[in-house]
Amino acid sequence: MTCAIMTRPKNDTFLRALLREPVAYTPVWLMRQAGRYLPEYCETRRRAGSFLDLCKSPSLACEVTLQPLARYDLDAAILFSDILTIPDAMGLGLYFADGEGPKFERPLREEWEIRSLAAPDPYDHLRYVMDAVAEIRRALDNSVPLIGFSGSPFTLACYMIEGGASADFRRVKTMLYDRPDLLHHILSVTAQSVTSYLNAQIESGAQAVMIFDTWGGALSHGAYREFSLSYMQTIVAGLTKEHEGSRVPSIVFTKGGGQWLEDIAGIGCDAVGLDWTSSLASVRTRLADRVALQGNLDPMALFASPEAVAAEAKKVLDDFHAAGPGGGHVFNLGHGISQFTPPEHVTTLVNTVHEYSRVLHGQG
Amino acid sequence: MTCAIMTRPKNDTFLRALLREPVAYTPVWLMRQAGRYLPEYCETRRRAGSFLDLCKSPSLACEVTLQPLARYDLDAAILFSDILTIPDAMGLGLYFADGEGPKFERPLREEWEIRSLAAPDPYDHLRYVMDAVAEIRRALDNSVPLIGFSGSPFTLACYMIEGGASADFRRVKTMLYDRPDLLHHILSVTAQSVTSYLNAQIESGAQAVMIFDTWGGALSHGAYREFSLSYMQTIVAGLTKEHEGSRVPSIVFTKGGGQWLEDIAGIGCDAVGLDWTSSLASVRTRLADRVALQGNLDPMALFASPEAVAAEAKKVLDDFHAAGPGGGHVFNLGHGISQFTPPEHVTTLVNTVHEYSRVLHGQG
Repeated sequence: MTCAIMTRPKNDTFLRALLREPVAYTPVWLMRQAGRYLPEYCETRRRAGSFLDLCKSPSLACEVTLQPLARYDLDAAILFSDILTIPDAMGLGLYFADGEGPKFERPLREEWEIRSLAAPDPYDHLRYVMDAVAEIRRALDNSVPLIGFSGSPFTLACYMIEGGASADFRRVKTMLYDRPDLLHHILSVTAQSVTSYLNAQIESGAQAVMIFDTWGGALSHGAYREFSLSYMQTIVAGLTKEHEGSRVPSIVFTKGGGQWLEDIAGIGCDAVGLDWTSSLASVRTRLADRVALQGNLDPMALFASPEAVAAEAKKVLDDFHAAGPGGGHVFNLGHGISQFTPPEHVTTLVNTVHEYSRVLHGQG
Repeated sequence: MTCAIMTRPKNDTFLRALLREPVAYTPVWLMRQAGRYLPEYCETRRRAGSFLDLCKSPSLACEVTLQPLARYDLDAAILFSDILTIPDAMGLGLYFADGEGPKFERPLREEWEIRSLAAPDPYDHLRYVMDAVAEIRRALDNSVPLIGFSGSPFTLACYMIEGGASADFRRVKTMLYDRPDLLHHILSVTAQSVTSYLNAQIESGAQAVMIFDTWGGALSHGAYREFSLSYMQTIVAGLTKEHEGSRVPSIVFTKGGGQWLEDIAGIGCDAVGLDWTSSLASVRTRLADRVALQGNLDPMALFASPEAVAAEAKKVLDDFHAAGPGGGHVFNLGHGISQFTPPEHVTTLVNTVHEYSRVLHGQG
C-alpha cells in the first residue's frame, strides 16, 4: 500500500507552514473544497448514483478530489470521503436519507451493542479509502500535498449514539452524565480505530492528517477535556510521525473550541484549526506560536461581492500578521464551504490570499 | 403604568447577587423556566389557542410566568413573552408555523423596507407586554423579583432578515459583508426600540432586565463587536438605572461569546450570562470580578439521574467558588431548558443549588 512517489511535492508551502518553516506566501485550501458548490462535482455525483457510491469508488473519489485543484490555485488536496466511514465499517449501517444528512440503521442504544463494538481493520472494510488515497497520490503526481482526515472520536460517537445529526445531543449527553463508563468505552474503541485509520492513510500516501472535531464545542468545558480532547491526544500520540522521509504534520480542529486553544495546542499536534470567532493575532499571543494555525474566514463572507471577499481575506491575513513575524499560517475557512457558494468568488479568495500574503511576507 | 408596590422583594437574593452584595446562598432561576416541559404550561397553552394568543394575553402570560414558582423554590420570575415582539410591532407579521418555529410574513428584503423601519411606541403596539409585567408584579406580591427581557438587536435582525430561524445566517451575513450600511440601519432602529421597550418594562415593574444575544456567537470576532456588542452597549447606556428607589441591574448574554467576555463585561452591564463552555473560575479570574456571572449548567445534564443532576450542579458551584470568595453568582442553565426535561429533575437542581451553596457561603 505504500506510494510509489517518495519525494516531497513540488509545492510544499502547505507542509512548510504547518511546520512553521519560512514560506514565500500563505498557503490556502478550503474545508469541503470538493463539494456541491462545484457543478463538476454535482455531475460526477449524478454519475456515481448515490453519495455513498461516490465515496466508495476510489476512481470517482479521486476525480472529485482533483476538481477544485483544476479550477483554483490551491496549495493542498484533501481526500474526498465521508466523516462516518469508521462507524459504517463497525457495522452501524450508514445511509443518507434525501435532504436529511447521514443516518445509521443501527445506532448504539443497548449496553450489549456498545460492549461488542470493535475497531475495524482499515485495510479490510475501509480498503476503499486506502485505495482512493493511493490513487489520488498517483494522480496528483507530486504537485501539492494530500491531506488525510478523520472525525474525532467524540464527533463520531455523537452520530453513532444519536443515529444522525442532532440539535441538542440529548442521547449522547444523557449517556455522558448518566453512564460515562459506556461513553468512555465507545470513545476508547473509536480512538483506537481512528489511529489505525489515519496511520493507514499515511501509509497509503497522505502527507498530512486532520482530525475534525465538529461537535466537541457542544460540550461543557470539563466534559470537553474528558470526552473529546483526551481521545484526540491519544490519537495524536499514536500517529506515524514520519513517512517517505518527511514529517507528517497533524491538524486538530474543534469547531467552537476557541476558549480551549491552550489545551488543544498542548496535545502534541502541529497545527490547530480555528473558526471565525477567534482572532488569529490574539490566539498567536495566547499560544506563543507553539503551533501553526489554520483558518479562519467566515464561509458566509464568500456570498458577498468579490471586492468584499478580497477585503475580508485581507483582514484575516492582517490579523495573523498583527502578532508579528513568524508563526505558521494556513489560510482556510472557519468551517466547510457552503453548497450555495458562487464558485467564481473562490477564485477571488484564493488569488487574494496568494497575492496579498506575498506582500506581507515581503516578497511582493 | 408604574407599579403600586414600591419596596424591595422579600427574597432579594437574586438582585443582591447581581449587584455583588453578600448573600446567604446562590440564587437560581432557569432560562425558559415557564415552558413546555411543564404540563401545567401545556394546559394553559391549549386553552389560549395559539402561542401568540398566550403571549398577547396579559392574564395568561401572568399565569404561566407564575407556574414554575409554584413548583420550585426559584429566586426570580421572568416575564413570559416571545423574543420577537418588537419586530412584530414593527409590522413584520410574526407567525408560528406548526413545528417550525417563528416566521415573519414580511421579512426585510428590499432597501425601501429597511429604510422605512421605525421603532414602535412600547405603550402602543407592545402595551400587552407592559400590562403583563404590571399584572405579574401584582401577582408576585413582592415575593421574588421580576426579570424583564428583550432579544439583542443582532438577534432580532437575524429573524427580521432571514424571515425565521437559520442554520447559516446566509442572508444577514451577506448583508453584513456586502451592505453593512443597511444592516447598521436596521440595528440602529432596533437598538432604539429595545431601549424604550426595556425601559417601559422597568417602568411597568420589571426589577432587572436581560438582553438575550442568542445569535451573536455566530459572528466573527470583529463583526461581533461592530454588529452586536456595540448596539447592546448603546442599549445598556440608555437603560433606566434606578426605579422604585432600587438599582435595576442588567444582564447581557451572548451564547457562544466565551472568547469575548472581557469586551462584554466592559459595556456597563451588571452581569454577564455564560453558556456551559466557559469555566466560571477562569472567567472570574479573566474579568477580576468586575461583573456578576449568571450560569452555566448544560441543560442536557437535567436528563441524567437526580444523583447526577445534583453532582453536576455542585460542580458548577464549586467551579465558581474555586476562584475564591466574593464575586456574584446567579445559578442558571447555559441555555433555555429543553421541552423534554423531566420536571422532577428541576426540583433536585433547585434544592441542590440552595443547600450546597449555603455550605459554600459558610451558612450551612
